[in-house]
Amino acid sequence: MKIYPIKGIKLASICSGMYRRKRLDLSILELPVNTIVSAVFTKNKARSSTIDFSSKNLKKKSPKYLIINSGNANAGTGKYGMLDIKEYCNALAKITNCKVNDILAFSTGIIGERVAVNKICKSLPKLYKNLNEKNWANFAKSIMTTDTQPKIFSKRIKINKEWITVTGVAKGSGMIKPNMATMLSFIATDMNIDKNALSKIQKEATKKSFNMISVDGETSTNDASLIISTGESRISFKKLTKKEKENFCNTICEAHTQLAKMIVKDGEGATKFITIKVNKCSTFNEAKNIAMSVGNSLLVKTALFAQDPNWGRIISAIGNVEIKAKDINKYTISFGKNIVFKNGYKAKNYDEKKLFKYLRNKEIDINICCNSGNKEATVWTSDLTYQYIKINAEYRT
Amino acid sequence: MKIYPIKGIKLASICSGMYRRKRLDLSILELPVNTIVSAVFTKNKARSSTIDFSSKNLKKKSPKYLIINSGNANAGTGKYGMLDIKEYCNALAKITNCKVNDILAFSTGIIGERVAVNKICKSLPKLYKNLNEKNWANFAKSIMTTDTQPKIFSKRIKINKEWITVTGVAKGSGMIKPNMATMLSFIATDMNIDKNALSKIQKEATKKSFNMISVDGETSTNDASLIISTGESRISFKKLTKKEKENFCNTICEAHTQLAKMIVKDGEGATKFITIKVNKCSTFNEAKNIAMSVGNSLLVKTALFAQDPNWGRIISAIGNVEIKAKDINKYTISFGKNIVFKNGYKAKNYDEKKLFKYLRNKEIDINICCNSGNKEATVWTSDLTYQYIKINAEYRT
Repeated sequence: MKIYPIKGIKLASICSGMYRRKRLDLSILELPVNTIVSAVFTKNKARSSTIDFSSKNLKKKSPKYLIINSGNANAGTGKYGMLDIKEYCNALAKITNCKVNDILAFSTGIIGERVAVNKICKSLPKLYKNLNEKNWANFAKSIMTTDTQPKIFSKRIKINKEWITVTGVAKGSGMIKPNMATMLSFIATDMNIDKNALSKIQKEATKKSFNMISVDGETSTNDASLIISTGESRISFKKLTKKEKENFCNTICEAHTQLAKMIVKDGEGATKFITIKVNKCSTFNEAKNIAMSVGNSLLVKTALFAQDPNWGRIISAIGNVEIKAKDINKYTISFGKNIVFKNGYKAKNYDEKKLFKYLRNKEIDINICCNSGNKEATVWTSDLTYQYIKINAEYRT
Repeated sequence: MKIYPIKGIKLASICSGMYRRKRLDLSILELPVNTIVSAVFTKNKARSSTIDFSSKNLKKKSPKYLIINSGNANAGTGKYGMLDIKEYCNALAKITNCKVNDILAFSTGIIGERVAVNKICKSLPKLYKNLNEKNWANFAKSIMTTDTQPKIFSKRIKINKEWITVTGVAKGSGMIKPNMATMLSFIATDMNIDKNALSKIQKEATKKSFNMISVDGETSTNDASLIISTGESRISFKKLTKKEKENFCNTICEAHTQLAKMIVKDGEGATKFITIKVNKCSTFNEAKNIAMSVGNSLLVKTALFAQDPNWGRIISAIGNVEIKAKDINKYTISFGKNIVFKNGYKAKNYDEKKLFKYLRNKEIDINICCNSGNKEATVWTSDLTYQYIKINAEYRT
């Protein structure tokens, strides 16, 4: 895939030796003057000090540098958390001639160990020297933990005869659940847009993407999702027509959704990519709760791993949502186009042979039609496998 | 263990051929006249028709017979669910000379298949003929599904020079979570007690037992927990002293707790029995939420399977509860007596070697001291293993 750089955003990545294996594990990003950053952070109460540090700095003004490490989450580190961040950000401020408040810091990795400040500080001069607009692919690699693939999205759209670029990277493969989860995402654009408008677009895009995926129901201490807008293009968002605005919003949303799907596809030990679509529901929230309850059910996820059309477990998962018991009789449930449940019971044309064949696919659609409204929600999830246990039993040791 | 029968309660079990393997799978219980039954049912909205049937009959009067099958949950069976129950309960009413409304029915097993009414009806004459007070052990066996062990509790206590007996059985090993889960529990006593008092005792006992266990976070369509009181003893509960009442309540609570722990110990694929005790908390609910969040975390459960003292995952799980972020710095977390977290960071005497040794035990205690109140809650759970995936991927097929 072609990666389009964003004019003015320079990146550099290095192997600082912080990650358990030798590979890229530390990155810095330089942002042009007057860059706008909109961010969504984890709601986990045991959040990393990086989240406190970055959310505070973001309130004040435009950040000039980002620093991101993998291998250590800097969470569960008590008072040392902030001390360590300040130490290495001070060093970065010195080299780059900015203030500590101009920096945002992000971390992902093991919880409960102090971050190796000396390894970061030692790497800063070389990182600063290597800053380059073309380094997106390395940046994507440097933030990986149990990810098996770097996750990159890049697209250009033409508005008013000008190219607008949207390029982003993400990481995450476990601890994925509603309200985000050990995932980091950095999506950048050269659109000229004010912070309020950007934040509104982000909220909508997050709702339909990172908040709609689930791998293991865990929410992390370090989640952060950023949209970075340099404003370097000659296109001003507020002067666009409604249709042009939509075109841009859809591209931002597509970046979020594509990266979210890449995270699920890279779900720890996953062998299936499962799309749960709930439609004709009375409210969006009910549709989302139903889809999430099915998507988070270990019994559903192990059945799908076994390629077993055990729709009883789907019914049971739906039953855990606060719906009216009687309404379930109105539901239609299908695997792909194969209806399995209708009128409160197994569908008339239920054909187990066909279902077994369908479930051999890598991508499985579970469709739940509630027949009681016009709202819908789509959740993406993965199956639960031996490999998930292996990865999470072995990680750290 | 010695099983003390309850005078007047007669039981019989049989292999009806409904379970996937040939073994006891159908039981009936005969209750003496004026028996009091207090019950708690699942909150799952896709509940089995047996739950509708039994809760309705329980409202009217004292039940005379119970009928319980394993192998089929009679859930997700639409209108056929109730039709089938009525058919086999009609047959039972005929043989036993009672009314359909005098019967309670319970089921556990696969969801989405119609129950084999003919197999039940064919077994009824023999079941009726075999009714006997001594058949508790067979009853416990007949309700098992993925359980590897029957679960029985039996104890006598002396009150006023008379013996009061409490004997109960339970089933359940997967789909276990707060608010009960594919678990059935039948606890009987000969105490003479009115329904209000019994129901109050049950509420308290359930709160501390079946609502405090978690294997995989799933809640089932068929959960039911009953206390059956024949009143055949000469001891009347309302005439007891406060201390004697406490003695009886504690025994009922012990029956619930012991059966709940047996369910966790038999958790699908479990290799560890984990007790999570949260104390010095400001409210019971907060303590329970913290313990449950840790107990339900797949990352904590896989780490314990790997015998890895990864307390960072405990911190992260605690962070998912609605507590104040700052409070976490007050918490002390220990594995057994080994403190791992204090003052917001790894404890001073943190000794990984000792911890690895401790985690080799079959029974693991995780103690979380909040240092902010005097309430406590204890949750029991198991680890998450390859075997869990295997059992749930292979069940049904």
